Amino acid sequence: MFEKVLIANREEIAVRIMQACTELDIEAVAVYSDADEDAKHVRLADEAYRVGGSKAADSYLDQESLLEAAREADVDAIHPGYGFLAENESFAANVESSGFEWIGPPSDVMADFGEKTRARKIMSAADVPVVPGTTDPVTDPEAVAAFGEEHGYPVAIKADGGGGGRGLKIVREPDQIEEKLREAIREGEAYFDNPNVYLERFLEAPRHIEVQVIADEHGTVRHLGERDCSVQRRQQKLLEEAPAPGLDDDTRERLCEAACRGVSSADYVNAGTVEFLYDDSTGESDDGEFYFLEVNARIQVEHGVSEELTGIDLVKWQLRVAAGERLSFEQDEVEHRGAAMEFRLNAEDPDNDFTPIPGTLSTYNPPRGIGVRVDDGVDEGDAITPFYDSMFGKVIVTGEDRAEAIARGKRALAEIEIEGIPTTIPFHRHILEDEGFLENRHSTTYVEEELLEE
Amino acid sequence: MFEKVLIANREEIAVRIMQACTELDIEAVAVYSDADEDAKHVRLADEAYRVGGSKAADSYLDQESLLEAAREADVDAIHPGYGFLAENESFAANVESSGFEWIGPPSDVMADFGEKTRARKIMSAADVPVVPGTTDPVTDPEAVAAFGEEHGYPVAIKADGGGGGRGLKIVREPDQIEEKLREAIREGEAYFDNPNVYLERFLEAPRHIEVQVIADEHGTVRHLGERDCSVQRRQQKLLEEAPAPGLDDDTRERLCEAACRGVSSADYVNAGTVEFLYDDSTGESDDGEFYFLEVNARIQVEHGVSEELTGIDLVKWQLRVAAGERLSFEQDEVEHRGAAMEFRLNAEDPDNDFTPIPGTLSTYNPPRGIGVRVDDGVDEGDAITPFYDSMFGKVIVTGEDRAEAIARGKRALAEIEIEGIPTTIPFHRHILEDEGFLENRHSTTYVEEELLEE
Repeated sequence: MFEKVLIANREEIAVRIMQACTELDIEAVAVYSDADEDAKHVRLADEAYRVGGSKAADSYLDQESLLEAAREADVDAIHPGYGFLAENESFAANVESSGFEWIGPPSDVMADFGEKTRARKIMSAADVPVVPGTTDPVTDPEAVAAFGEEHGYPVAIKADGGGGGRGLKIVREPDQIEEKLREAIREGEAYFDNPNVYLERFLEAPRHIEVQVIADEHGTVRHLGERDCSVQRRQQKLLEEAPAPGLDDDTRERLCEAACRGVSSADYVNAGTVEFLYDDSTGESDDGEFYFLEVNARIQVEHGVSEELTGIDLVKWQLRVAAGERLSFEQDEVEHRGAAMEFRLNAEDPDNDFTPIPGTLSTYNPPRGIGVRVDDGVDEGDAITPFYDSMFGKVIVTGEDRAEAIARGKRALAEIEIEGIPTTIPFHRHILEDEGFLENRHSTTYVEEELLEE
Repeated sequence: MFEKVLIANREEIAVRIMQACTELDIEAVAVYSDADEDAKHVRLADEAYRVGGSKAADSYLDQESLLEAAREADVDAIHPGYGFLAENESFAANVESSGFEWIGPPSDVMADFGEKTRARKIMSAADVPVVPGTTDPVTDPEAVAAFGEEHGYPVAIKADGGGGGRGLKIVREPDQIEEKLREAIREGEAYFDNPNVYLERFLEAPRHIEVQVIADEHGTVRHLGERDCSVQRRQQKLLEEAPAPGLDDDTRERLCEAACRGVSSADYVNAGTVEFLYDDSTGESDDGEFYFLEVNARIQVEHGVSEELTGIDLVKWQLRVAAGERLSFEQDEVEHRGAAMEFRLNAEDPDNDFTPIPGTLSTYNPPRGIGVRVDDGVDEGDAITPFYDSMFGKVIVTGEDRAEAIARGKRALAEIEIEGIPTTIPFHRHILEDEGFLENRHSTTYVEEELLEE
């Protein structure tokens, strides 16, 4: 096992990785920007290195600075967390060629899944259902019209390098084709330096269901079940839960097996998430279809939901498989117990279009007691700065079933005390009382189109 | 289900019960002494009633005051927690006759188990092994000598109303008999208003292993497995864990079945703990013998350890069975996963013979993250007063196995920040590094006779 690991990240995921290192007796090395000099992830680390100015581009995205810190600290491996450089295959390649272990998939596997059309081809070849669409870049409005003719409208035009809603354009009628195609190509170029776009049938109100996988270097892939992340606003997840409510066992099994088959065919290693859209627009709970969306080749924010259900520490397994260890459990030894739900704590004002509002946590008293886990990157008195993502923590509740998890969530969100900044807590309290959510009638468009319109 | 419940207790157990009530949509009514006017259990309650002065005798032990609060608040039921009046069968009877439900065993069952010789007779009749001893009171030194002759020395003389080490005298040689018998009778009279004493073979270095049971009014008894509570000083538990390390599956099954058989024979209802001494003094792990010690006819401090292993909320089930509900799970549906360990946080100085030291929690930052549960009765800034028990919280960690639970415990106890009072945390950190503990060589006398003597 590694003796010393550098964590190329900040906030709650840096703290989470540090806790796993500590429990495995690995020294944890933090990095920090000027804005994070006194941050919790620095306070808890065994060593900490400044990597640059407050802007992410000057610090957490500065590859040379991070590698310099790794050399200075003389670590064995680098964990990228999520966000920042976690899905940057050239950084992964640099880490590998600098003689450090990369705690994530090999850089060539990251490249496979980084390009959406390549990922679609890999998954299709492994018999994983993908949304009907093109696997080659499209440049011609005629091709869009032909696709719309064959598969029906609306048609989604997606930037090949895109993600999180950027470079995504919806064509609802043929006469929108030229304009939308032009826009998608322009956004792809501007945001991702890649003008290629492709087409997909656009699902109006799908559920977002994803499968957590973990794979070792020896060819073994296991899944930790699925998560439902349909509660989103602007394609950003707010609340995640498992098991996915209303999903029948047969579909669940096919979904998880498809995810394992797909990543296995690409020689995937380490933790990853295979995201699917689940379309049950017929309204019948047991005849929905799932379609591959994308692979997140890293640990995700919501990994804790699966940890609570299975009792398996995913971040520890990331470290172990990166060090060459074999997964020690069979698929049928992964037992899922109860239901878990995660509430993201963002420094945002839900009454003002979720605008990020930085400030100081003048009061912060986390909830405690049975079935309540808090993963955070802050203590009372800490500042939430404007430089990075607004999420500063997560409350994960677990119960015997969804009803108990919801009751526990309400209790935990009533106990938590936060002053000094607005947070997403009022939103979570609101959705836990919402009939559409309680009765599983929500989809990825539910928050914006129904819940917040009430 | 009840609509409103009075919690006749304080601190962490009052908060714990309140959390269960909130999750079940039951209004929780707190009571408080003058010293607890601003306590956390009062802050979190839906309503709170003053029941008297700071001394326990003037408030939490004042039956009439508590019943008056229950009448004023118009509650359906009373939960006694642990300590104070929780095992006082006359209070239970008063509660019942005042028209409230008692959230605990019926008062006559409490009486059965309150007297140690009666409890021994019940258990013996149900074929539960008891330590060789007398079932009738002993007054005559000759009887002690005859017992020593038959079963060997040392012989324990125990007060019939006793517990927690009070009224317990050890006779190591025949010439100590007269003196020790006189002392035991005197202590029984002084502390428990009961001069009756009985004899038992004294086990030199047993393990303390107990079984958590829960029973409904309809004759169903289930167990949630065992806990090892051998880490004690002055017969007070400091650290509890499950499963009991080194216990073989066959013994575990016999132990849990014996516990269920015993309480079932007494028509037990609600949660309870059947305590055993486990004697493996031969040094072989799989040939130990267990002997019934006593029944704690209430919820225990360490119940959370079993909750973590099984995912079952015991306090909610206490409320449900008191309301007449049936236990909804079969014995083979109780799945035990991983290992859990509880560290009691007491305001005591472990370097000074665990002397209770009251004070103010000027800093209190509880540990968080995966596998860490904190049950407490305090927030930062709260005072620990000298009037009551020194325990103000518990850290419960859970892992895939004992090794992970220990690693997590070390991590959590390193993260926790407490200033203003000495606590038992340094003791816990010490024992988590101790070879005897790590290798399961400890017994109930280990802390005093070996660990603290180093």
